[in-house]
Amino acid sequence: MTKRVVIVGSGFGGLFAAKALKRADVDVTLIARTSHHLFQPLLYQVATGILSEGEIAPATREVLKRQKNTRVLLGDVTRIDVEARTVTSELLDRTTTTGYDELIVAAGAGQSYFGNDHFARHAPGMKSIDDALELRGRIFGAFEIAELATDPEEVDRLLTFVVIGAGPTGVEMAGQISELARRALVGDFRNIDPRTARVVLVDFAHEVLGTFGDRLSAAAAKRLQDIGVEVQLGTKVVDVDRDGVTVEDEHGSRSLIPSFCKVWAAGVSASSLATQLAEQTGAETDRAGRIKTLDDTTLPGHPEIFVVGDMASLQGYPGVAQVAIQGARHAAKVIKGKPPTPFVYRDKGSMATVSRFHAVASVKGLRFSGFIAWLLWLAVHIVYIVGFKSRVTTVLHWFVSFLGRGRSERVATEQQVLARLALEQVGDSFSLGSEGQITRRTAKAR
Amino acid sequence: MTKRVVIVGSGFGGLFAAKALKRADVDVTLIARTSHHLFQPLLYQVATGILSEGEIAPATREVLKRQKNTRVLLGDVTRIDVEARTVTSELLDRTTTTGYDELIVAAGAGQSYFGNDHFARHAPGMKSIDDALELRGRIFGAFEIAELATDPEEVDRLLTFVVIGAGPTGVEMAGQISELARRALVGDFRNIDPRTARVVLVDFAHEVLGTFGDRLSAAAAKRLQDIGVEVQLGTKVVDVDRDGVTVEDEHGSRSLIPSFCKVWAAGVSASSLATQLAEQTGAETDRAGRIKTLDDTTLPGHPEIFVVGDMASLQGYPGVAQVAIQGARHAAKVIKGKPPTPFVYRDKGSMATVSRFHAVASVKGLRFSGFIAWLLWLAVHIVYIVGFKSRVTTVLHWFVSFLGRGRSERVATEQQVLARLALEQVGDSFSLGSEGQITRRTAKAR
Repeated sequence: MTKRVVIVGSGFGGLFAAKALKRADVDVTLIARTSHHLFQPLLYQVATGILSEGEIAPATREVLKRQKNTRVLLGDVTRIDVEARTVTSELLDRTTTTGYDELIVAAGAGQSYFGNDHFARHAPGMKSIDDALELRGRIFGAFEIAELATDPEEVDRLLTFVVIGAGPTGVEMAGQISELARRALVGDFRNIDPRTARVVLVDFAHEVLGTFGDRLSAAAAKRLQDIGVEVQLGTKVVDVDRDGVTVEDEHGSRSLIPSFCKVWAAGVSASSLATQLAEQTGAETDRAGRIKTLDDTTLPGHPEIFVVGDMASLQGYPGVAQVAIQGARHAAKVIKGKPPTPFVYRDKGSMATVSRFHAVASVKGLRFSGFIAWLLWLAVHIVYIVGFKSRVTTVLHWFVSFLGRGRSERVATEQQVLARLALEQVGDSFSLGSEGQITRRTAKAR
Repeated sequence: MTKRVVIVGSGFGGLFAAKALKRADVDVTLIARTSHHLFQPLLYQVATGILSEGEIAPATREVLKRQKNTRVLLGDVTRIDVEARTVTSELLDRTTTTGYDELIVAAGAGQSYFGNDHFARHAPGMKSIDDALELRGRIFGAFEIAELATDPEEVDRLLTFVVIGAGPTGVEMAGQISELARRALVGDFRNIDPRTARVVLVDFAHEVLGTFGDRLSAAAAKRLQDIGVEVQLGTKVVDVDRDGVTVEDEHGSRSLIPSFCKVWAAGVSASSLATQLAEQTGAETDRAGRIKTLDDTTLPGHPEIFVVGDMASLQGYPGVAQVAIQGARHAAKVIKGKPPTPFVYRDKGSMATVSRFHAVASVKGLRFSGFIAWLLWLAVHIVYIVGFKSRVTTVLHWFVSFLGRGRSERVATEQQVLARLALEQVGDSFSLGSEGQITRRTAKAR
């Protein structure tokens, strides 16, 4: 009987594991909670109106269409039974149990609010298409409401954007919001000047892009300031609510940054499947909830279970796409018959864009910043996207979006505008009907 | 003092009224409920995964950016006071009152369920971006759930799509869903064959595209059948619920078409502002709630109030974009000083696509069907889109999307997938949290 391989997740780990098994004599079942793969490194461009969601989220089954040994199932994996060797997934009222001979778990990580889950409603994370579209509605909505506002203090609050977390996602978001306000939106309004918007990037660390090394951190911080981002480092976030973000400096002094639109790009926490697997196998988990794997990415006593990507902890490898992709390929090789040697991550380098035409890149000990780094960033991203997009037209499409300066994807649904904006503007008194429609009466009643 | 012109609505009527006043010595304020203009004739392409929402919904203020005499306000117009000459609009807790000297009301029409409003939750209309994205989630979701289903009857229900209303929108939706199933999705699934999907187009009338004349109606009906659409004419819809659509034939015999995904493209009903204006001015309204204007598009006794587009009833002119655009331009000319002559609609023709490369077009007594009509349709739509999109890249972008065969915009948010699909699949027992998140527990509990 052909060996059954089940893959959990359609992120970088899951998708690349499936692709690596393309020609293997195995039956592959990929089970994921979303029907799309998400190219998370460009999520900030969806949130800021540059790309459409379809451009960074191809349907997983479309990507794997021609791979005849692979099927894709939509479902939320709720249970992995390592004794019975089954994976249970749910979609609405439908429960599906899938048996496996070998299992690759790549369920990733979600946003972590470090125990302050009440921050989440006011400061969406940057992990999913839902997040990005919600933030798109909040960002553009802030300018719309500000155009109507009459109280100068209220206008200031509406035009203050706080991004929490100065890693790549936070830096990119802060940079793009600032460019949006200072370039793309100029001339669109009559009562406000979008160039007066404040974009504040807050982190407890003492540098932006800490993992890139001192020189690039300094270059990125300088570039951020040049394009109008206020960088507040060594600053702890103690509260996030409707009014804004309360921060504490190193002397313990607290202050409120009044802000309508808050973005959380600070922490991640592994899928709860990590804990579930740890309990069953005796593996340990770390502070971020990631499961500690053996050197070959398998779990102790379970050479048939591989855990890769953001939910795995191994050798301190960072939670980046390349670690997931290489880990997935390593697992696929072992499944195809290669002896289970230790997985060694080859750092191909890391990069982040700070603004249009300006990036920082660290590649094999070489560090670039500025235009050259941006070209490198562009080239790498185009190569990856081309890998997913099978049609010439969609590649061309993406290329055009990417080089264009427009913010042609500004639309938010009315539901997003009203529900989300009501939360930050009117407070908790609005209500959502059972089908997601917003009761405007509540807003009016105030 | 410069004359103040207020425009209500950002559809074809509102936007073209504003554009026509570009060089006029007036202060223009356009107030609309959405921050985008919607190119409704292509909404079906957003619903079926061809175009992104941004491609048919440019930000109104971006389109009017360079028009210095014009400001754009986001808000739901709740009250027009014809005595005080003010327009009251609301956005969340903010109420804005805007005075006018002349007023152009172009608030359009919403979907009408002919008194059966409970159909709405099961059969979304095709009037807004929200509608299109919801339908996108339902259409692609139907295939996803079917891939998991084991009961053949259930698979049949999931793969049956019923489109109610055989006007241009209904014909285009039915055609595109059929092409999606028979071309774009082929090879994507392992358990189901999408080509077995049933697409049923239902109308009480005895022809599709009735307004196009017998020959084109027959051509469109034949083409629909060729691409696999079942056309059920002379058929009354008596109920729409979770299970499907209950229809009644001409002999009074009722039957249920089991269907997961239902689309309502049948009726429209004018904005309630029509009734409000009628009550204040003594004008009449018709069955669809449209207000009867004088021949020059103004209201009786109120030469300063123009009503154009889908919310106006005049000479039996149809509810199409060209009537709104020409009516808006007529009103703008009068405002600019031209004597208030009667508005005469110049029919430039009408067209509808049935499938890729196949359309029907009726232009000045000439009637085309097939490829030539499709080229004409393409040319007209490209010219219009170019009129809105100011940047070369976005025009190119759109052109590429349009010619491409891919369905690169298939993504739905998890919220859409879960909330909407739960409704049709699990029934009414799911619940939405106050922020729009879905409580999956409810779905599981069944």
